[in-house]
Amino acid sequence: MRKVAVVGVGMTKFGKHEKTNMEMIAEASMDAINSSNITPKDIQALFVSNCLAGFEEGQLNMGGFVASELGIAGVPATRFEGACATGSMATRDAYNWVASGFYDIVLVAGTERALSMGTPLATRTFAMASDALYEGFCGLTFPGVFGLIANLYSKTYDVPMETLKESMATIAVKAHKNGANNPKAHFQKPITMEKALGAPMIADPLQLFDCCPFSDGGAALVLASEEVARKLSDTPVYIAGVGQSSAGNLGTQTYLPRLRSRELAAEQSYKMAGLEPKDIDVVELHDCFTIAEIVASEGLGFFEHGKGCQAALDGVTQMDGKIPINPSGGLKAKGHPIGATGAAQVVEIVEQLRGEADKRQVSGAEIGMTDTLGGDGGTLCNIILRR
Amino acid sequence: MRKVAVVGVGMTKFGKHEKTNMEMIAEASMDAINSSNITPKDIQALFVSNCLAGFEEGQLNMGGFVASELGIAGVPATRFEGACATGSMATRDAYNWVASGFYDIVLVAGTERALSMGTPLATRTFAMASDALYEGFCGLTFPGVFGLIANLYSKTYDVPMETLKESMATIAVKAHKNGANNPKAHFQKPITMEKALGAPMIADPLQLFDCCPFSDGGAALVLASEEVARKLSDTPVYIAGVGQSSAGNLGTQTYLPRLRSRELAAEQSYKMAGLEPKDIDVVELHDCFTIAEIVASEGLGFFEHGKGCQAALDGVTQMDGKIPINPSGGLKAKGHPIGATGAAQVVEIVEQLRGEADKRQVSGAEIGMTDTLGGDGGTLCNIILRR
Repeated sequence: MRKVAVVGVGMTKFGKHEKTNMEMIAEASMDAINSSNITPKDIQALFVSNCLAGFEEGQLNMGGFVASELGIAGVPATRFEGACATGSMATRDAYNWVASGFYDIVLVAGTERALSMGTPLATRTFAMASDALYEGFCGLTFPGVFGLIANLYSKTYDVPMETLKESMATIAVKAHKNGANNPKAHFQKPITMEKALGAPMIADPLQLFDCCPFSDGGAALVLASEEVARKLSDTPVYIAGVGQSSAGNLGTQTYLPRLRSRELAAEQSYKMAGLEPKDIDVVELHDCFTIAEIVASEGLGFFEHGKGCQAALDGVTQMDGKIPINPSGGLKAKGHPIGATGAAQVVEIVEQLRGEADKRQVSGAEIGMTDTLGGDGGTLCNIILRR
Repeated sequence: MRKVAVVGVGMTKFGKHEKTNMEMIAEASMDAINSSNITPKDIQALFVSNCLAGFEEGQLNMGGFVASELGIAGVPATRFEGACATGSMATRDAYNWVASGFYDIVLVAGTERALSMGTPLATRTFAMASDALYEGFCGLTFPGVFGLIANLYSKTYDVPMETLKESMATIAVKAHKNGANNPKAHFQKPITMEKALGAPMIADPLQLFDCCPFSDGGAALVLASEEVARKLSDTPVYIAGVGQSSAGNLGTQTYLPRLRSRELAAEQSYKMAGLEPKDIDVVELHDCFTIAEIVASEGLGFFEHGKGCQAALDGVTQMDGKIPINPSGGLKAKGHPIGATGAAQVVEIVEQLRGEADKRQVSGAEIGMTDTLGGDGGTLCNIILRR
């Protein structure tokens, strides 16, 4: 297997757009292409990440239309769907087509109109990422799932709910603080602890600022083989490890605050990269809710189980902490256009490892990691990158 | 790249099912697994093919749930979508993960409930495979698209419409004759030329029997590296070539009866296999309409452009002809549960090359090909298999 690098990245601002999915994915793609010193014609295959265009725009079979929009109709173009993990899955798959020697230069591109589709349809379609036959009909949507996780976390680890809520609010404040340094973020305004803790209840104990928004946006990556990458870029960022795993519905999972699928996926990517959690300098992980950041930080091995709550309170995950988490603002403040999220996490890590993250630069970052969760554990995908 | 073989296949009967997608995909998968001399635990990754479960069952993010249903939650499970070409895309992608050496044994599994969702929703969601922004709002659904293709074919090649209609009816009669020999086919009853030519008009000049049905069904394949395949099976069938290509909406395509994406995809698979059209002994191609079979038979290089109509009339594509097309009955009679279609084509070719196709066996078949079209050219995927 050959080494594979990310040579260029692009993303739209996340938030509210008057643009179609096709316009957003083209904008992000052209940014990635232009920053890679290639032209569209150099792209040999296209990996498209989108979840809900069928519901939002009546659009399936997007691959070919994206290729056509970029002026490269004819290239193999494949659409992936694995809920919020979709973009990471598409990136991992693209990685393999280059690593195997089949292609030298490929494009990963994701898009979603999750805000513009409106909250009722977004809530209903996001919930389709849980098991329709066993979970969907109960009416349990994701705020409820993560509310359950927060309660379980508090009980199992004997963490007082007031402490957990303070930790979650700390994470929300951190996300908005980091987002304020990210010109592409959905939310760019800092919030206070008082504001977070005084916000309306969504799904006990999760309050408004514990929940990520629905966002519109696109993100894209150009991947190339090592040989080609060295010619195209002075700062290629290599994919050192990839991991993906799966799980069944909640009824088949033993203990939600420890998602087995995350641990399996992380095991794969660490092993492949020959690295351990302590080697990671910066991470973009799946903080669809603040409690999700806590359990992800434990599942990826940065903290012992039950210790992530205190670590957040202690500032360990802040920009100047031992393991800065979500410098981009994360799903919480950067935003969560689900088909674009996985690629956008890689965009952030690439900019961090290149030292191009400006006001949100993690000093001296050399190794970074992304982590994306699809549904309530159904799909988990991690990517480790290094300079 | 390593050689990759299909070591086991499975499929449900196509037609009307009272089963969920999960039940059908599990049934097909277990048949494929059992016929491969492996157990589910031997499967290292899962490639899931489905188009419409989001609309039919409110189910996205299917990968993990399929893995869980098979008792192998934890394995990477990826869902693909490229309209009717989905199953072929999943198979091609799975091929690469084994060829690259990443995995030794993987499962491709597809399912669809296209009949049970009812004609109005099926028509509406199938039409989402065309470009929603430029085609969808015109109300052009696929019978209309292929009606246009038939008219264009007649005019361009100066083939009298009566001749073309007779050729299309011949193809419909062949499909139902072959389907009658396939215990898994949706339609197992032969029809006469009179019945075909006297049927109601659907989209001029296409009549009822020129159109494939909506079907429910599942299909699955176990792929393995050559070394593993030799241990598991006395009759491995090797994937000799794969091809995939894309196109934009109809407005960007120059001439519909020659789909450029098919020609590009076929070029790839022939080149990779080191073969030519004349080397193919049996083919399962995308006959969503009888005219689609004619243009596909030309696009794959079996006949010159404009000559496929006469070739069908001359019996060249019959079971005992020079190039037997769709011995399974094809989409026309075997049925078209879109997420399962691509894998089901491979199922048929594998059975043909193993000499296990019983009453519909093509004598001495050693090399076979599949061809699947997603949308009106948007996605095209071919696979060449050999003993």
